[in-house]
Amino acid sequence: MEKYVYLFSEGDTSMKGLLGGKGADLAEMTNIGLPVPQGMTITTKACLRFYDEGEKIWDSLRDEILQTLKKLEEIAGKKFAGKDDPLLVSVRSGAKISMPGMMDTVLNLGLNDETVVSLANKSNNPRFAYDSYRRFIQMFGDVVLSVDKDLFEDELEAMKERNGLAFDTELTAENLKELVGIFKAIVKDKKGIDFPQDPVEQLMLSVEAVFRSWNNNRAIVYRNLNDIPHDIGTAVNVQVMVFGNMGDDCSTGVAFSRNPATGENKLFGEFLINAQGEDVVAGIRTPQNIDELKNVMPEIYEQFAENCLKLEQHYKEMQDIEFTVENGKLYMLQTRSGKRTAAAALRIAVEMHREGLITKEEALMKMEPERLDQLLHPMFDEEDLKRATELGKGLAASPGAVGGQVYFYAEDAVKAAKEFGQQVVLVRKETSPEDIEGMTVAQGILTSRGGMTSHAAVVARGMGTACVAGCEVLNVYEKEKYFSVGDIVVKEGDFISLDGGTGKVYLGEIKTVSPTVSGDFEVLMGWADEVRTMRVRTNADTPRDAQQAIDFGAEGIGLCRTEHMFFDETRISAVRKMILAKDVAAREAALNEILPMQKEDFKGIFKVMKGLPVTIRLLDPPLHEFLPHTEAEIRELADSMGVDFKTLNERVSGLQEFNPMLGHRGCRLAVTYPEIAVMQTSAIIEAALEVKKEDGYNVVPEIMIPLIGVFEEMTYVKKHIVETADRLIQNSGIQMDYLVGTMIEIPRAALLSDEIAEEADFFSFGTNDLTQMTYGFSRDDANKFIWEYLDKGIFEKDPFTTIDQKGVGKLMDMSVKLGRSTRPDLKIGICGEHGGEPASVEFCHNIGLNYVSCSPFRVPIARLAAARAKIKENM
Amino acid sequence: MEKYVYLFSEGDTSMKGLLGGKGADLAEMTNIGLPVPQGMTITTKACLRFYDEGEKIWDSLRDEILQTLKKLEEIAGKKFAGKDDPLLVSVRSGAKISMPGMMDTVLNLGLNDETVVSLANKSNNPRFAYDSYRRFIQMFGDVVLSVDKDLFEDELEAMKERNGLAFDTELTAENLKELVGIFKAIVKDKKGIDFPQDPVEQLMLSVEAVFRSWNNNRAIVYRNLNDIPHDIGTAVNVQVMVFGNMGDDCSTGVAFSRNPATGENKLFGEFLINAQGEDVVAGIRTPQNIDELKNVMPEIYEQFAENCLKLEQHYKEMQDIEFTVENGKLYMLQTRSGKRTAAAALRIAVEMHREGLITKEEALMKMEPERLDQLLHPMFDEEDLKRATELGKGLAASPGAVGGQVYFYAEDAVKAAKEFGQQVVLVRKETSPEDIEGMTVAQGILTSRGGMTSHAAVVARGMGTACVAGCEVLNVYEKEKYFSVGDIVVKEGDFISLDGGTGKVYLGEIKTVSPTVSGDFEVLMGWADEVRTMRVRTNADTPRDAQQAIDFGAEGIGLCRTEHMFFDETRISAVRKMILAKDVAAREAALNEILPMQKEDFKGIFKVMKGLPVTIRLLDPPLHEFLPHTEAEIRELADSMGVDFKTLNERVSGLQEFNPMLGHRGCRLAVTYPEIAVMQTSAIIEAALEVKKEDGYNVVPEIMIPLIGVFEEMTYVKKHIVETADRLIQNSGIQMDYLVGTMIEIPRAALLSDEIAEEADFFSFGTNDLTQMTYGFSRDDANKFIWEYLDKGIFEKDPFTTIDQKGVGKLMDMSVKLGRSTRPDLKIGICGEHGGEPASVEFCHNIGLNYVSCSPFRVPIARLAAARAKIKENM
Repeated sequence: MEKYVYLFSEGDTSMKGLLGGKGADLAEMTNIGLPVPQGMTITTKACLRFYDEGEKIWDSLRDEILQTLKKLEEIAGKKFAGKDDPLLVSVRSGAKISMPGMMDTVLNLGLNDETVVSLANKSNNPRFAYDSYRRFIQMFGDVVLSVDKDLFEDELEAMKERNGLAFDTELTAENLKELVGIFKAIVKDKKGIDFPQDPVEQLMLSVEAVFRSWNNNRAIVYRNLNDIPHDIGTAVNVQVMVFGNMGDDCSTGVAFSRNPATGENKLFGEFLINAQGEDVVAGIRTPQNIDELKNVMPEIYEQFAENCLKLEQHYKEMQDIEFTVENGKLYMLQTRSGKRTAAAALRIAVEMHREGLITKEEALMKMEPERLDQLLHPMFDEEDLKRATELGKGLAASPGAVGGQVYFYAEDAVKAAKEFGQQVVLVRKETSPEDIEGMTVAQGILTSRGGMTSHAAVVARGMGTACVAGCEVLNVYEKEKYFSVGDIVVKEGDFISLDGGTGKVYLGEIKTVSPTVSGDFEVLMGWADEVRTMRVRTNADTPRDAQQAIDFGAEGIGLCRTEHMFFDETRISAVRKMILAKDVAAREAALNEILPMQKEDFKGIFKVMKGLPVTIRLLDPPLHEFLPHTEAEIRELADSMGVDFKTLNERVSGLQEFNPMLGHRGCRLAVTYPEIAVMQTSAIIEAALEVKKEDGYNVVPEIMIPLIGVFEEMTYVKKHIVETADRLIQNSGIQMDYLVGTMIEIPRAALLSDEIAEEADFFSFGTNDLTQMTYGFSRDDANKFIWEYLDKGIFEKDPFTTIDQKGVGKLMDMSVKLGRSTRPDLKIGICGEHGGEPASVEFCHNIGLNYVSCSPFRVPIARLAAARAKIKENM
Repeated sequence: MEKYVYLFSEGDTSMKGLLGGKGADLAEMTNIGLPVPQGMTITTKACLRFYDEGEKIWDSLRDEILQTLKKLEEIAGKKFAGKDDPLLVSVRSGAKISMPGMMDTVLNLGLNDETVVSLANKSNNPRFAYDSYRRFIQMFGDVVLSVDKDLFEDELEAMKERNGLAFDTELTAENLKELVGIFKAIVKDKKGIDFPQDPVEQLMLSVEAVFRSWNNNRAIVYRNLNDIPHDIGTAVNVQVMVFGNMGDDCSTGVAFSRNPATGENKLFGEFLINAQGEDVVAGIRTPQNIDELKNVMPEIYEQFAENCLKLEQHYKEMQDIEFTVENGKLYMLQTRSGKRTAAAALRIAVEMHREGLITKEEALMKMEPERLDQLLHPMFDEEDLKRATELGKGLAASPGAVGGQVYFYAEDAVKAAKEFGQQVVLVRKETSPEDIEGMTVAQGILTSRGGMTSHAAVVARGMGTACVAGCEVLNVYEKEKYFSVGDIVVKEGDFISLDGGTGKVYLGEIKTVSPTVSGDFEVLMGWADEVRTMRVRTNADTPRDAQQAIDFGAEGIGLCRTEHMFFDETRISAVRKMILAKDVAAREAALNEILPMQKEDFKGIFKVMKGLPVTIRLLDPPLHEFLPHTEAEIRELADSMGVDFKTLNERVSGLQEFNPMLGHRGCRLAVTYPEIAVMQTSAIIEAALEVKKEDGYNVVPEIMIPLIGVFEEMTYVKKHIVETADRLIQNSGIQMDYLVGTMIEIPRAALLSDEIAEEADFFSFGTNDLTQMTYGFSRDDANKFIWEYLDKGIFEKDPFTTIDQKGVGKLMDMSVKLGRSTRPDLKIGICGEHGGEPASVEFCHNIGLNYVSCSPFRVPIARLAAARAKIKENM
């Protein structure tokens, strides 16, 4: 016969499906010998049968509950409806998956007109007894009998008013006793029945009510929202009530087994003598530090500390524990994994391993990679933050809490920072590569348009600068040098603050707290490096970024973009001449001006990287990005180039595109203007040869062709690269290797990776573009509707933040398999923004990538995520 | 022992690999008993061994050639170096795959100082004999001895000059005899040898030279370009020379077995008495109609006609035949399948079946579907065309040869056409949906930007209007109302002509020839319909287009776009109100204004379609396409809406997108504004119900959701459609079915088709967008570099014209298989522009599509292509 009712001592933590989460946890605590108020769990299967039986407790279940109740009475040493010390119980729901607040609870069950008197006597506290009774009637009335709970509340208010009282706590025992009478009258009036006096009847009705609450409206909505099945039912826990407010040998409290702010291995918490759990939270009385318990109840404290240690040892995790002392006896009410700051998480993980409690792998699994971010960036002072005026919320594009004076043009920002030493925040509708210098000097960057992978966001992350992108409530008037949010106007020079970790923007200045990285950080990172098999590289375009990434443990550069270098003031004019050249000869002349500069760029990077691999991507963006847009700028350029305005203007507008993202860029530039690829190859190879000669580093440059979609593009561009590189190497008389590979960022390249791998030494997934093409929306434009997609549950997560494993990931997996089918040793990495996002890093590990590459500040996150992926693989 | 030399009578057409194409064809003609000048073929295997033997004819091959030569002398009744009637031969290359002009040929071999005299006597024409001899020396000198051929040409010129002659033909026998001496002296001078007098030596040297020419430079380049293997070698054909210029009992001519212009089953051709083949082409003498041969050489004519019939019967194909009559004896020199006009091809195919010569299937395989276009559109008069000034060449976007007066704005075009009855050509940089009325009245449409699937191209094909798109040499100044090409300026009102079948644009007016569709067209189409298993639908947005398509045999509408309807003057203001609405209520109010109009649109279409399936796509383009762009227009709209300019302007610019193709469009509109989908569903369902009631047609509307990429988009939008439709149907009391399906045009939708098919009643491939996303370039922007891709051989064909089977096709195939894995009866079609392109139609058949849908004028092409695909499947 199916067993429907379990004593806590009959279950364990593995039985969550049958006993629900709460029931299984209480059973587990019981089993490890902790003093848990005992009870029984009526199973989820009983709940399901309850519905089959027409929402009634059937006879045999009733019998089983009563039999188990008998055992409970024995264990507790109290009796239901007992004259002396009556057994009171709570009745609570508890599904397999926690649904906090969604279903019903009844406390103090077992009280009636007689037992309330016993309780008053036993506790020597009639006020407590009648307060407990009126609460029970109120809860039972609401939950079991469906009496409008406002009726009770109204009477409670009326009672206070009649007696000129402000708080519930001021009500006397007499007031409460009177209220019990009034409450019972309400039940009689509304339901036509006397309030049930038989505790067994109370119990059966309450169990039925909790079973029914599984299908109340809010529970159904909650399950729909959280993808919880509707057919698993809830268990019901009937647990002996204990009271911390029966006298001065009672108390109640909450404690963490370690300090949740710092991670120090020392009990941390608060308690109150003669109080209920809710009093600790309510703030009416000031709780005492848990250390004080040592003085007040030394034995209890020792026992509690021992239990905490036992729980930590059992769960191998810092615990958040609720306890109550009833008449000098300690009860452990609840324990769960404790929430903690990032710093605490780090320290706890490292120390628990040192204490021999957990393995290195378990330590690594305790630290969420994403939380490392908090350790590396400044944060706002919490008190100061509470007083700040929030202007709006955009995308949390690059973490860090910063403030500064607002500037709308890069040149103004540069001037303010360099000439006047101001802290500046660059505010723009969107940034473009022309703004790069202003972005470099800014403390923070704020844009009103663009997504997580817009120019502003990508560059800011690369530089480790705080950035909030796509803050659409801002109306930015760049020319007029102000922005507005509703009625608030912020002008050039005004101070604002922004938190790139939350996306929030504030008016004025807010104090910040600097990050402090402890030695534990390096220790944990060291363990991560021991464990992981996937390499971590960085996306860096400058020696400065490269050095930053090296300091964070990067093992190479996975993406060195070459276009930012083109915007430098000293070379943009040569770049423009190159773009606007009428023929190959003129274009080559302009390229020859750029060549020595590009070579110096690469030398700088090769020197910092000291022989670590460096992947350099050939020019990617559409050429019109390098050209001026306004008539005045075009006139100026025409003058400086000595051509007439009309011709130049036609040429400039001829380069405009309908959809720049889908236009003439990437390897398409190299196909139409192979001279550019040749110049860049020359710069890379010459730089590598010179660094090899000058510094002796074994540089093996990796030349990466962007946006390949067609095999013949690959062969065409590669031919130009190889001819150039081989000639230069041969002429140098130095022996040097180099690789030629491709981005995989066009769906077609993923589909035909077998073919493409025949010509590619390596693949690097450009998941920004691959996501755009696979979904058919651009990251910048999607920003307008992606919120609604997230709101309506169409997207669980923003696919530009975490890889869409089902769609984009399917293409990636296909590409890896196809690529290695023709070139088994194909080196494959990822250099899209996803390379530093933990779930994506795990996915990359799982499909067999050799490395991920991410912005310098995300390198530690990627290292940890890669280690955790490896650990999970072995689990 | 390997046989290396075959008499023509020993081979047949199946031996092309061994004998080469020409050798096998000559053998085949010999075998069916035609009077072919006999000869021998030295095999391709001999060629390969020739290279193994160090580029020498080895002894046993020499022996085999000599033995076969003996047989040839017997057959020809002439002897090499014969005194009386010497045997002369030609030596020609002939590979398996024809490589016209790439390898070498020697004619008149066998002539020497003695045989030239015999020939002069025999032909009674010394001039002919010496001319033949000097040609032989010249060719042999060039091909075999590598003497610079200019040396011979220079002497020829000098001889004419000395004698005051203008043409070669004016040279006398004496002149030519002298030239022979000079030519031999050149050989002696340059090579230090006497010109070889032994015909056998001449032959061996010539065979070696032809073998060597297999690996000359131009042959290698040609094979590289045409993907012909380098290791198959060439055969050498040694054939008896016949001469049509030895007297008045000689003649030469060319004829088609049927009329290549009309297809009439009657010999068609020309001949010349006493002439060489080249004389017929050269135009110095006017050839006579082949009918005349009946009078001049009645027996020869009869024999020739009989041979032609025999060849047609043998090849089951209209033949293009060369013949020569030498001294009263007919020789058939060459036969091949004859080129013909589209009209002729159609008539020949139909009549050949009627004559019992071929099956219906064979008839269908004779008609290239693409050629049907020529039968349905006017063409330019050829003579008139020769005199026209070509302005430039763009994309052949929609066929038809037309002319008219130039207008740059739709409204000007409408005025000119309606008020002044002008023929107009609308010229714009690019068209947009606002131009629709101007496009409707225009004879032709010309744009300077945009690709084969730009707005102009798509709409023009839909309407059957001629269109040249993306003619980039044009500088269009719309505001100034003129365009320029180099120095030529064309102003509003000037006349131009354009051919949408070739993409060419001309200055001024050119006469056109109207198409005449014969009854044969319907007959062949009928056969196609009997054979094909794939359905053919049309893309049509109006009752007019729908009727046009029905007339062309469409079996339903595969794509009815709903956005063009939104641009109608009477409703654009309601549409704009809807777009700019501040809240759902205001949006619904505006939609309620549009609803009755949309309903009428659909009723019109349902009535024309009389119960045939109609697939209606919900609103697809980004909303900003419906808004005004200039400040003046925005001010006007602001006034008419009673809002202030600034607010409206901000709203309009807020809707602008970086990449409209990748923006807020398709089902993304329905997700953010479900009201729009609800309104459109109401219009569709109400229209269907009313037509069902009024006309009794069994309308089963197919509602198609565009741009699905995520399963949850599908469920979300479908829910709104189904709720709306079910409510309306239930309220109507009428029983009606409807389908809800999706476009597959986003790569992710293809990748996850199994999931999406669970919610979709049908799929329709939107291969325009699918191609864009899979390649990662937009059709409009790709136009800038796609030419270079075609030039450089990176693309074989424009993927927007014919489906990229390897990449895009792989996704389609995957989608079909995945979709039917969860819904085996899933109906799948295609409604992209590719649906009317024969190779794409064949691909669609092969991957198991149920139908293709294309613009009305391409329906016949698709019907024929579908039939041919089915036939090929069974071959």
